[in-house]
Amino acid sequence: MGFLDVMPKIYKPVAEVNLSAHSDEPYIHANVKAPRMAGFFVKVFAWVLELRIVGAFVVEILKRNNLVHKFVSFAEISEPPLYTPTHVSEDNYEEQQVYNMKPGSPSTERVQEAVDCLPKDAEFAVNSDSNSDFRRWTIMDYSRAYSSRQITPHLVAMRFLAAVKESSEPHINMSFFINYNPEDILRQAKESTLRYENGTPISVLDGVLVAVKDEIDCMPYPTTGGTKWYHKFRISIEDAHIVKQLRSCGAILVGKTNMHEIGAGTSGINPHYGAVRNPYDITKISGGSSSGSAAVVSAGLCPIALGVDGGGSVRIPASLCGVVGLKPTFGRVSHAGILPLNWTVGMAGVLAGTVEDALIAYAAISGDLQLRQPTPSLAPATNLPLLASTNPIANIKLAKYEKWFNDSADEVRTSCEHALDMLHNHYGWETVEVTLPEIEEMRLAHYVTIASECNASLAPHFAKINFADVGWDVRVAHQVYRSFHSREYLNAQKIRNRQMYFHKEIFKHADVIVTPTTGVTAYPLQRDTFKTGELDYINGAALVRFMIAGNFLGLPAITVMVGCDKGGMPISIQFIGRPWSEATLLHLAYGLQAICSKSFKRPMIYYDLLKEETASQ
Amino acid sequence: MGFLDVMPKIYKPVAEVNLSAHSDEPYIHANVKAPRMAGFFVKVFAWVLELRIVGAFVVEILKRNNLVHKFVSFAEISEPPLYTPTHVSEDNYEEQQVYNMKPGSPSTERVQEAVDCLPKDAEFAVNSDSNSDFRRWTIMDYSRAYSSRQITPHLVAMRFLAAVKESSEPHINMSFFINYNPEDILRQAKESTLRYENGTPISVLDGVLVAVKDEIDCMPYPTTGGTKWYHKFRISIEDAHIVKQLRSCGAILVGKTNMHEIGAGTSGINPHYGAVRNPYDITKISGGSSSGSAAVVSAGLCPIALGVDGGGSVRIPASLCGVVGLKPTFGRVSHAGILPLNWTVGMAGVLAGTVEDALIAYAAISGDLQLRQPTPSLAPATNLPLLASTNPIANIKLAKYEKWFNDSADEVRTSCEHALDMLHNHYGWETVEVTLPEIEEMRLAHYVTIASECNASLAPHFAKINFADVGWDVRVAHQVYRSFHSREYLNAQKIRNRQMYFHKEIFKHADVIVTPTTGVTAYPLQRDTFKTGELDYINGAALVRFMIAGNFLGLPAITVMVGCDKGGMPISIQFIGRPWSEATLLHLAYGLQAICSKSFKRPMIYYDLLKEETASQ
Repeated sequence: MGFLDVMPKIYKPVAEVNLSAHSDEPYIHANVKAPRMAGFFVKVFAWVLELRIVGAFVVEILKRNNLVHKFVSFAEISEPPLYTPTHVSEDNYEEQQVYNMKPGSPSTERVQEAVDCLPKDAEFAVNSDSNSDFRRWTIMDYSRAYSSRQITPHLVAMRFLAAVKESSEPHINMSFFINYNPEDILRQAKESTLRYENGTPISVLDGVLVAVKDEIDCMPYPTTGGTKWYHKFRISIEDAHIVKQLRSCGAILVGKTNMHEIGAGTSGINPHYGAVRNPYDITKISGGSSSGSAAVVSAGLCPIALGVDGGGSVRIPASLCGVVGLKPTFGRVSHAGILPLNWTVGMAGVLAGTVEDALIAYAAISGDLQLRQPTPSLAPATNLPLLASTNPIANIKLAKYEKWFNDSADEVRTSCEHALDMLHNHYGWETVEVTLPEIEEMRLAHYVTIASECNASLAPHFAKINFADVGWDVRVAHQVYRSFHSREYLNAQKIRNRQMYFHKEIFKHADVIVTPTTGVTAYPLQRDTFKTGELDYINGAALVRFMIAGNFLGLPAITVMVGCDKGGMPISIQFIGRPWSEATLLHLAYGLQAICSKSFKRPMIYYDLLKEETASQ
Repeated sequence: MGFLDVMPKIYKPVAEVNLSAHSDEPYIHANVKAPRMAGFFVKVFAWVLELRIVGAFVVEILKRNNLVHKFVSFAEISEPPLYTPTHVSEDNYEEQQVYNMKPGSPSTERVQEAVDCLPKDAEFAVNSDSNSDFRRWTIMDYSRAYSSRQITPHLVAMRFLAAVKESSEPHINMSFFINYNPEDILRQAKESTLRYENGTPISVLDGVLVAVKDEIDCMPYPTTGGTKWYHKFRISIEDAHIVKQLRSCGAILVGKTNMHEIGAGTSGINPHYGAVRNPYDITKISGGSSSGSAAVVSAGLCPIALGVDGGGSVRIPASLCGVVGLKPTFGRVSHAGILPLNWTVGMAGVLAGTVEDALIAYAAISGDLQLRQPTPSLAPATNLPLLASTNPIANIKLAKYEKWFNDSADEVRTSCEHALDMLHNHYGWETVEVTLPEIEEMRLAHYVTIASECNASLAPHFAKINFADVGWDVRVAHQVYRSFHSREYLNAQKIRNRQMYFHKEIFKHADVIVTPTTGVTAYPLQRDTFKTGELDYINGAALVRFMIAGNFLGLPAITVMVGCDKGGMPISIQFIGRPWSEATLLHLAYGLQAICSKSFKRPMIYYDLLKEETASQ
């Protein structure tokens, strides 16, 4: 094994690490040593890895070459492990301009409280209807249209079904959904219509279409996790808690969106249910793993959808599809009824066409905690940003680590820098330069963690299924996932502790950390990729580059579109906040949306369910 | 690998497990498939395990044969992992007859508060001096003797040094200490003597001798962890927090007690620093790993000593040496300055000659929290039992799982049952029969956990040391410790979650769980054992049988001597309490001591430092 030997990294104590802009901590570019593979080559690679002795050896070579051995497996780290990104409520800080929701109130009340926080005058609402070239219909648009009898939920549902049908035709083949049941949708729509006819809508969400990632239980559908087999072992018998909350507000659950198989990738290419195509350009990926949820919102089919984010899985497709993605603080939202693909990094999140809709959805699914273990129930009362009739918060400080920020495609960097300039010019929000050390180490530690947990969760199932039912890229991933030793897992948790320290230090001097959401925009779906999926760890690393703190440290994060690249593909910026600071994130995101979204173009695939129009291409 | 295949256990959901006395949950006797080995055979076994391929294969066979594979590695467990036994203060319940110490007050004040809680009249103090055949000198005895000038701390320190010297002579060779420095001890003693001369003692602990397990930093000594090498990699530069607390009360720190090497065993046999002999019979083991700390208290050298308990390491030697052992709730006591041999099961604890002294020591080292991560600082204010002038608490319910309780040597069982009868007769405390399922599964899950964590902690050192410096039994242990996969670690944490649920359910109907402390009493030190240590997993399993919940679930536990076997070796009973219920445990232990200790005999090796006597044998 001599040639596997590495010089392990000896981490210096956290207190000795310089976090200032002038730190000499190195920025390590993702050291991905794996070629893009698809088609036949993925199959051969999977076969090799599945050889008992040779496969294990090849996996260790991969781990060595990709610096897992150096930075995680054999590293010397004096900090103790931190196993869960649990934040006690005392970690909370004084947020400005927030409304504290009543704890324990029903979702309907919280949704109304959120509506009361929305801007009603133009003070902070630059994005008024008339100014924009294009804007998606919001929850409030639907609510007003229903209440004023311009349209009924039933008609919207009919249009939705027609649109989904059209989007599934061979010439587009968007692959949005894994399951949707027209009868069930129309039944809900009729009930909602009746409520509006009786003048008794339950909330502004009544009759609003909501799609759910197929990792979250939602009746009457099985929960496949994007696989051919998961639902055979785990029968879903009731709505997940967050689905119950939305249903209790009158929302129409329109089905289960497509996703990367078991969430094991970020491209959104699913060999069983199709590669979700990007509504901005159907030859390009949607991003994943909550690919369908991002794409349906982008395409106008729903104002909001639910996703789950274990390594950027809400924020990446949101960014690539040009919609808002909100990943709340770990522990803020119940995980009851969500597939246990991991326990310490995944969090349910919201995909929405606008920040306002993200706010309403967030209000609906938080604050009524049925927390999964091992999170103690420590979440403070949910805070909402007071966008209504208030000025932007003064003195916001955005921490930026230049080397990291700039490790992105030129157009991405330029757009995000431009957005920061605009924030400064419009609101006086300042960027402060910092150093966030050990970014690549954190990415690898997070990978070891999510891989180990996913393996522990799925191994009993994998022992029983026919591997022919598993996508080739997942077969490869599985062989790596199952390779991690307890020492590697524990070392990864020590790195989690270091990063928690670093981030808390940064947050002493800044309100949020700002990054591009993804290092690259949506890239082309290649012809060889549809049946086997693809292994593209270089693009994969660029997609997750800025995601990890949100998952590994349980920090809230939001992504908002700020522009497009030359090919017209969305570019987004991300704010990562202090624990429980969703209100501040939504405030910042709203401010950004107000000044950025005016010039946005309509996606190539867009269904205008409130107007008498059909799909345009 | 076919012949390694096992049928993994499929755990039923916790809510379906019947915890009543009439449950049909099986009680599984420890399935230890490993012969006792010592001397040459241990060496051969270590050599085999250290062979790269063959060794790994043999370890897996051992894991299969000892049911690790079936119950942990490949088990199907639907509960999520619980990584740390952290208890939020809301878990606390209303304890009866407690005094809440002021949070954040200095140790000296807390010690005085503890003294005020001690009984002053005979109401609850059956154990008055005149009634007992033998009783050890207490902290209060020392304090009164110093204050009344009957004796000085300096004279006591001189007697202590003479006694230690005598105990080290070849014909006894007790091997109590790894390090003690007569100059440093006498310097402290002189300072204390001066304070008493000036009438300004700091607290009742002023001038009281305290010994410290060599896993805890205490200046001016290195911290060896019972090894030949640890102190070369990790220089101890200041007292551990709990040592600082005791020092601040005026206690005289008399040196570092012997321990099982890196705490990796329960016999207390250390090949480098000698096998600690049991003061009750020097041909028998002391138990471990806090072997020296228990033995010095038993032998009268100190009224209290500090230990660390990761798998019974305070309670086992306390039980075998006939002293009180208190392991507080996880998070109650600071771990700053204690070797990081594990992060989620080990807790510092107290060894004391009497329950009163355990109470005072506990008051000194708790309540002033500098908690190690990952424990959030959630401990409530420290509670003390109001033993002074109050009656025993009424309506105490002691949960007993008969099959488990009875899985102990006949004399152990009989003595412990007799103690329960006496508690019922004297105080009306009732035993309630329950079923605590999956005891053996918990033992194995705890083993996987402590082994994995110890390996992650020590692996970087093991990569650098000369294995000739490592004891043979630890070399064997190391090969097993390093074998665990992340899936095994995560499955073990799922079992932790199950057990936390079971125990919380039991505590809805009972105040404490009662067990024998150990399944067997101290067994003989065999001649082949001194140089190599020994592998005796059958006795080892009997020693840890009742220990695991205290560590794996972070529950407080106390052990008190209740009698002797025919050979005169101590038998002890254990109370395991709800989180943060140390006050109740101390109350019960005090009640038990009051009725049991009257008939106890003096140990074979006993040094009476307050009287003009020397060692008697």
